[in-house]
Amino acid sequence: MKKVDVVTFGETMVLFQSNQKVPLEYVHQFDKLIGGAESNVSIGLQRLGHSVGWFSKLGNDPFGRFILQFVRGEGVDTSACLFTDDASTGIFFKEKRSFDNTNVYYYRKNSAASLLKPSDLNEEYIANAKVLHLTGITPALSESCSETVFKAIEIAKRNDVLIVFDPNLRLKLWEEHQARSVFNQLAEKADVILPGLDEGEFMTGETTPEAIATTLIGNAKKTVIIKLGSKGSYYQTMDGDGYVPGFQVDNVVDPVGAGDGFAAGIISGILENEPLRKIVRRANAIGAMVVGVDGDVEGLPRQEEIEQFMNRDHGHRDVNR
Amino acid sequence: MKKVDVVTFGETMVLFQSNQKVPLEYVHQFDKLIGGAESNVSIGLQRLGHSVGWFSKLGNDPFGRFILQFVRGEGVDTSACLFTDDASTGIFFKEKRSFDNTNVYYYRKNSAASLLKPSDLNEEYIANAKVLHLTGITPALSESCSETVFKAIEIAKRNDVLIVFDPNLRLKLWEEHQARSVFNQLAEKADVILPGLDEGEFMTGETTPEAIATTLIGNAKKTVIIKLGSKGSYYQTMDGDGYVPGFQVDNVVDPVGAGDGFAAGIISGILENEPLRKIVRRANAIGAMVVGVDGDVEGLPRQEEIEQFMNRDHGHRDVNR
Amino acid sequence: MKKVDVVTFGETMVLFQSNQKVPLEYVHQFDKLIGGAESNVSIGLQRLGHSVGWFSKLGNDPFGRFILQFVRGEGVDTSACLFTDDASTGIFFKEKRSFDNTNVYYYRKNSAASLLKPSDLNEEYIANAKVLHLTGITPALSESCSETVFKAIEIAKRNDVLIVFDPNLRLKLWEEHQARSVFNQLAEKADVILPGLDEGEFMTGETTPEAIATTLIGNAKKTVIIKLGSKGSYYQTMDGDGYVPGFQVDNVVDPVGAGDGFAAGIISGILENEPLRKIVRRANAIGAMVVGVDGDVEGLPRQEEIEQFMNRDHGHRDVNR
Amino acid sequence: MKKVDVVTFGETMVLFQSNQKVPLEYVHQFDKLIGGAESNVSIGLQRLGHSVGWFSKLGNDPFGRFILQFVRGEGVDTSACLFTDDASTGIFFKEKRSFDNTNVYYYRKNSAASLLKPSDLNEEYIANAKVLHLTGITPALSESCSETVFKAIEIAKRNDVLIVFDPNLRLKLWEEHQARSVFNQLAEKADVILPGLDEGEFMTGETTPEAIATTLIGNAKKTVIIKLGSKGSYYQTMDGDGYVPGFQVDNVVDPVGAGDGFAAGIISGILENEPLRKIVRRANAIGAMVVGVDGDVEGLPRQEEIEQFMNRDHGHRDVNR
Amino acid sequence: MKKVDVVTFGETMVLFQSNQKVPLEYVHQFDKLIGGAESNVSIGLQRLGHSVGWFSKLGNDPFGRFILQFVRGEGVDTSACLFTDDASTGIFFKEKRSFDNTNVYYYRKNSAASLLKPSDLNEEYIANAKVLHLTGITPALSESCSETVFKAIEIAKRNDVLIVFDPNLRLKLWEEHQARSVFNQLAEKADVILPGLDEGEFMTGETTPEAIATTLIGNAKKTVIIKLGSKGSYYQTMDGDGYVPGFQVDNVVDPVGAGDGFAAGIISGILENEPLRKIVRRANAIGAMVVGVDGDVEGLPRQEEIEQFMNRDHGHRDVNR
Amino acid sequence: MKKVDVVTFGETMVLFQSNQKVPLEYVHQFDKLIGGAESNVSIGLQRLGHSVGWFSKLGNDPFGRFILQFVRGEGVDTSACLFTDDASTGIFFKEKRSFDNTNVYYYRKNSAASLLKPSDLNEEYIANAKVLHLTGITPALSESCSETVFKAIEIAKRNDVLIVFDPNLRLKLWEEHQARSVFNQLAEKADVILPGLDEGEFMTGETTPEAIATTLIGNAKKTVIIKLGSKGSYYQTMDGDGYVPGFQVDNVVDPVGAGDGFAAGIISGILENEPLRKIVRRANAIGAMVVGVDGDVEGLPRQEEIEQFMNRDHGHRDVNR
Repeated sequence: MKKVDVVTFGETMVLFQSNQKVPLEYVHQFDKLIGGAESNVSIGLQRLGHSVGWFSKLGNDPFGRFILQFVRGEGVDTSACLFTDDASTGIFFKEKRSFDNTNVYYYRKNSAASLLKPSDLNEEYIANAKVLHLTGITPALSESCSETVFKAIEIAKRNDVLIVFDPNLRLKLWEEHQARSVFNQLAEKADVILPGLDEGEFMTGETTPEAIATTLIGNAKKTVIIKLGSKGSYYQTMDGDGYVPGFQVDNVVDPVGAGDGFAAGIISGILENEPLRKIVRRANAIGAMVVGVDGDVEGLPRQEEIEQFMNRDHGHRDVNR
Repeated sequence: MKKVDVVTFGETMVLFQSNQKVPLEYVHQFDKLIGGAESNVSIGLQRLGHSVGWFSKLGNDPFGRFILQFVRGEGVDTSACLFTDDASTGIFFKEKRSFDNTNVYYYRKNSAASLLKPSDLNEEYIANAKVLHLTGITPALSESCSETVFKAIEIAKRNDVLIVFDPNLRLKLWEEHQARSVFNQLAEKADVILPGLDEGEFMTGETTPEAIATTLIGNAKKTVIIKLGSKGSYYQTMDGDGYVPGFQVDNVVDPVGAGDGFAAGIISGILENEPLRKIVRRANAIGAMVVGVDGDVEGLPRQEEIEQFMNRDHGHRDVNR
Repeated sequence: MKKVDVVTFGETMVLFQSNQKVPLEYVHQFDKLIGGAESNVSIGLQRLGHSVGWFSKLGNDPFGRFILQFVRGEGVDTSACLFTDDASTGIFFKEKRSFDNTNVYYYRKNSAASLLKPSDLNEEYIANAKVLHLTGITPALSESCSETVFKAIEIAKRNDVLIVFDPNLRLKLWEEHQARSVFNQLAEKADVILPGLDEGEFMTGETTPEAIATTLIGNAKKTVIIKLGSKGSYYQTMDGDGYVPGFQVDNVVDPVGAGDGFAAGIISGILENEPLRKIVRRANAIGAMVVGVDGDVEGLPRQEEIEQFMNRDHGHRDVNR
Repeated sequence: MKKVDVVTFGETMVLFQSNQKVPLEYVHQFDKLIGGAESNVSIGLQRLGHSVGWFSKLGNDPFGRFILQFVRGEGVDTSACLFTDDASTGIFFKEKRSFDNTNVYYYRKNSAASLLKPSDLNEEYIANAKVLHLTGITPALSESCSETVFKAIEIAKRNDVLIVFDPNLRLKLWEEHQARSVFNQLAEKADVILPGLDEGEFMTGETTPEAIATTLIGNAKKTVIIKLGSKGSYYQTMDGDGYVPGFQVDNVVDPVGAGDGFAAGIISGILENEPLRKIVRRANAIGAMVVGVDGDVEGLPRQEEIEQFMNRDHGHRDVNR
Repeated sequence: MKKVDVVTFGETMVLFQSNQKVPLEYVHQFDKLIGGAESNVSIGLQRLGHSVGWFSKLGNDPFGRFILQFVRGEGVDTSACLFTDDASTGIFFKEKRSFDNTNVYYYRKNSAASLLKPSDLNEEYIANAKVLHLTGITPALSESCSETVFKAIEIAKRNDVLIVFDPNLRLKLWEEHQARSVFNQLAEKADVILPGLDEGEFMTGETTPEAIATTLIGNAKKTVIIKLGSKGSYYQTMDGDGYVPGFQVDNVVDPVGAGDGFAAGIISGILENEPLRKIVRRANAIGAMVVGVDGDVEGLPRQEEIEQFMNRDHGHRDVNR
Repeated sequence: MKKVDVVTFGETMVLFQSNQKVPLEYVHQFDKLIGGAESNVSIGLQRLGHSVGWFSKLGNDPFGRFILQFVRGEGVDTSACLFTDDASTGIFFKEKRSFDNTNVYYYRKNSAASLLKPSDLNEEYIANAKVLHLTGITPALSESCSETVFKAIEIAKRNDVLIVFDPNLRLKLWEEHQARSVFNQLAEKADVILPGLDEGEFMTGETTPEAIATTLIGNAKKTVIIKLGSKGSYYQTMDGDGYVPGFQVDNVVDPVGAGDGFAAGIISGILENEPLRKIVRRANAIGAMVVGVDGDVEGLPRQEEIEQFMNRDHGHRDVNR
């Protein structure tokens, strides 16, 4: 198995959606895409020039093959991916309406990914990495998935692999109290925590970025970076804290995936040993770039595109002929 | 024939449109939908939990069958629908351009629905209802359609069925003076009148909501509710009057059908004996919800969706995962 | 609840498919349809002019609503349909390849329909019918579904409702020995059995139509009609037997749904008290007509279309202008 | 107005169709094309290198503009086209099913083209041509259309313009006895008559090509060429007669338009003074080429393509890389 | 060859694009359109009622035929178009992303149009016109194209044909210094110059509209009109100068083609001898109308549409039923 | 760079096509796929379980990225791929018509791949492989491409890598005499030659499989396998020869790619040391399977699918539920 700098794992599903803003019962034609926080992060990192591995357990069916082809096609190492005949690849449907929230409909219960178990982990693969990226989705999928996450953490700890935890709260998957308890256990073991403001409040009961971060850090040597949407981000370490303003987006095409792009930006900066404030600023830029493009991963930028974006006059629009 | 609480009738046509904003000569592919003010109202009412019947005369052709299937599929009682071999089902095309008005192109002259005649009415069906809903489109379709509307009013009057009249002015279908004369006759016989501000001005020559309503009510025990677009509505009865502000819509996807959703909201409130101000507020909400979804009927809300909408923070957008 | 002449129940799912003949991993766009043997039969019967009710337990989600709208739109009585928040509506994907079998991929495990249970049955609804139609799919869905089928049979027996059983073997849903055992129990209780040749062989171990039918009938007053594909059908009762040749189909567009059209034809003939040979011939015609149209239900014919088809010169093709 | 070698006129409509073989009520998306026998012939002739003018009366609406753009885009002279605000452009829908005939649904009653009247004719335009092409559709559209056809014939006769008549029987447009009477009047005045076998039988009561032709010719100096479908054609003049075998078509994609391609081939041959047998053979080839391509005009060949087609090995299929 | 009032020539290519805002590697389906500044102008002028001829050298391939059909279909005289077997018709792809500029990808190197050469010009065709329209794209295509432009200017000069020059800077096609040098040569020979503000700055080094115009005019009897985007335009002649405000556009659908519509408006006004200020105002209106419609030419208005647009209340949106 | 068992290289382009059988000028929507003989072979081999590397020089543009993503997504090693800013990725369009050959329209002149040059070769990558696969397309692309092919052969020879040559004659790319001369040079150096019958005749002037093979083999220790379309294949070595019948295909969906699947089958068999007759039979099966699926690579089978196909009853069609 190839050595990679970042390892991440978790469920990636096939996503079916339409551009029409109507309830799904009235949609006649669906486009097939993929969706998964961890694979989004892996693709984001690959596009920024890092070696990164993502794995999951996929169904031995066309949708599992599609996910593998897509992620592998992006240049992410998928050699640790597993296939099973015992369950189907999870899928979901996205419904876009303007008068209320976007809804998602999952067909992921007992999916192939939910069968991931501790013995599926390749210790060496994780041990060789510099960063292990985890989300709060995986422990919600099944008991064995939860055990797998904690086993991975144990391996990472034993091998001095930095642990980055992005909560990604999904209330359709588990009970609030369970989610809160597991999130706090994960936060305690993580070196870097990347909650949104809502998630920070959910975990700590605090309502300001400062208080959330202080609670999450406690006495540990941790970095907490809190996403504040269009307003940017707040970071805190034992050495200091600060707000980093966001980039203005004229036209939000699709907000999903911004957090994953942000995570990729943070991890990339860490790997490149950049100063934290600069890291956060670039992560903000990536998040802003992702929301301007349809799809979760299609808008993840390459390095030179980020620089263009950060330097440009955002009010100006031109055709590059 | 089933007993229903609301009866409405009128022409529903097959609608062909594209999402592209170009003149129709440049559109290569058209989607097939249905369009009809009265069937919109009937679907709106069914979705709010009422028993409602809609009928028309349809061509004995695939488009007539499609309309029947669609409206019946929504749970509206269509047992009073008639089919004819003597004419085709009416159809129309919608052209979306941003620099001027949306245009519609009708193929409805001498359509099946224009053959509706007084003897097509089932007296018992109307007599058993609590509300008869009528629009100003039907009398414009043909002489026999006009007679049918007045015959239906006569039946309703005789059986203490409340008459709700929504003008729906269509100047492509008849001469102004004809329309004005018929509208005023209908308004005189109606118990509830639901004009837009333009329509009220067209009917009365007055320009303020108050004066329009006063003129339309005269000395009669009527309710007039005037739609003011994004500003909300104005209502007047002999007992009092008032303005009810509208709900803000961030993103108008398709304005057509808002008035029909409004009418459904009013009739629903009447059936539930709600106070008028509350009725109008909910009708405003439904109108605002419809414009945020493509299509005339796709966005008509269910009861619980209206409550969510009325209570929510309109600036906040989230994915419900 | 409305009285209907035929009652049928079972899982109808949303079907996603594409016209492209490629493995599903390469399909980018999917069309949404519905698929379900029992609803196919109910639509077939409705189109032939009979009153028929179909029900299932549907998820309280857009796909459940779509199924209800579609079947109700066709004029089938759906008043006995149930909705649940405890499970999702089942869905499936069809993969068309020419070098081997068409594959289907199900997302139906623990679906809403699998939650159907004996207490969901409305005894009066079945008791008022003349025919109860059952397939061998329903008992495969879950233990409670199996119990529901046997409970329905008990109600039918008690009320002299004719039982028509169409095996519809689905080996992806259960073990062979289980399927065989349940099929034979159902066949024993049924008045009319409609196996394909393969299914007959699967149930009895016999290989000829005659021997299969003789085994299935035993000493009982039953009718067995065996579908022989393009060759037509074989029927046997205690009073006699015979082969009825099939109709030639120039161009098989989609073979799925032919058996359901056949079943609708048989039940229709029984309700109209036609002689068995004539019933089977018409059922053969319906089967042949269905395979010439895309989709399971789109090609189900109306009475006058069957007559045209049976009388016409099959080599002749013309544009009816 | 430009001088052209061939003049033809008649109604061209916008055609909506789908590739799916399902009844139209189940089609969700329609493609927009054009359809019209006379414009087909004009495009066929233009592609063969002749100067040709087509005209009609079109609605002053997007569909009228689309027809004009399409036909003019093909290089046909459309300077004689007329537009009216008094009626809409005719449209029609095509329904493809395999178990019976293709059906068409017209919205052409009182269409713009039906308003064509004798005074719309530009005498000089016809007088300057060598050939006037007419079909039996135009006189069926309205009384004034019929008069226009006979007026055009009169102009042609007076100016020694050759008259080619292609019956194109459309029984949805008029009564059989009317059609027969008008067809025979047109045939009497025409120099070249191009019936299909059915049409020839309809006009004369005769059943063999020979007898049909003999009846139509009578004592006049006429050419009759009877289309026999895949079997080819039969021609008869006062100087002799003969059968010309057709070209085998492996894969009939769309049979409509073959007759129009045939007519274009005949007229082209006449303009080039080719021997009749050679003319008919080439016309057969064009008809065979048209049925192998979707659409009425898309498959009309250029001269060099006809030669390739007539010379090639029809069993052989290759990619021309 | 027909006499036309305006002659323009230059490369028109087939354009492939999608509505999805994703990088092209993720686009699965492309629509086929055409794109070309000079043909846009010619279509704009034709729609305003002028006789106009456009020509190019096209590949003798389906894409060349498509361009010819499209432009000819619009009623532009294409009789001077040339076809070649020596090169393919140029094509290009448009990529829409919201976080940076729209990108275009050309396949036009050594295209058919780049083979245009001075001897391809029909002197009489240009000499008979009143206006010759030229863009700065053509001289960038090849040496022979550049020579052709200067030859055309020579013909125009000799025959008192007014020369209108619209720079249309395309930096992907040539070096900056080359472009600047050629643009200034063309500006010197032109009677009317239509730069955007950027282009004016590129050509002169000046940064204000006034200074740019003054530099470009020098001592000559020229008109310079500078496009200022949504702010409108600035014009200067030896007789005076002025700013003409633009029209507000609520919803920019597609900005490409606005400059070509503007040029068509200017030329149209010149042909109609309107006062300059009025000419510019109408040209501003056309530019504003074009950006509200998808596509380069689909939104080019007819005369009556411009008047409606200029007179209407821009905040008001209605369905014209 | 990874070690792989098979190395192949050559131009893969983006392919645009539509399912409609009309000339390209009438196609409005195009699907994006990829096409390239060598990448087809590499994907075929990967699917059969072999480690295989493919490379080309791609444009640094969205189409180059798409090709990389697609081929890499399939699990082929693409680490030797090169990108250039000096040229665009080649693209082509496929036109399907039934009355003559499928046409392709290339935009590949001076494409990125044509810039491949000997110094681009990684000697170790080839030296480590067991098989080098080459086609006769690459030397036709440019002088430097031709040199690269011969350099690769030299490396292979020096390192005992087996050379498999598949002619793939493309007469649009070069002159006949050039192609013949280069093909014969390549054949002389190759260990295995895989011509079609036409190609064998083109190279040798002989017309029978036996004579062609004998000529190509001469005195060398070579294997020649000649593809005979649906009739199967003929093989000859110094040790013997034979015909291996093909598999019947009921429904040819898309013939392109069959030869590449055949080549993958041959190379796979060689790597597995199977007897030649068995190798050829399996290659025949793969070719037959590919033509039954849309697209060049979508139908390339996995090992277990080949076995199913070779063992199954080809007249039988079933839905695998």
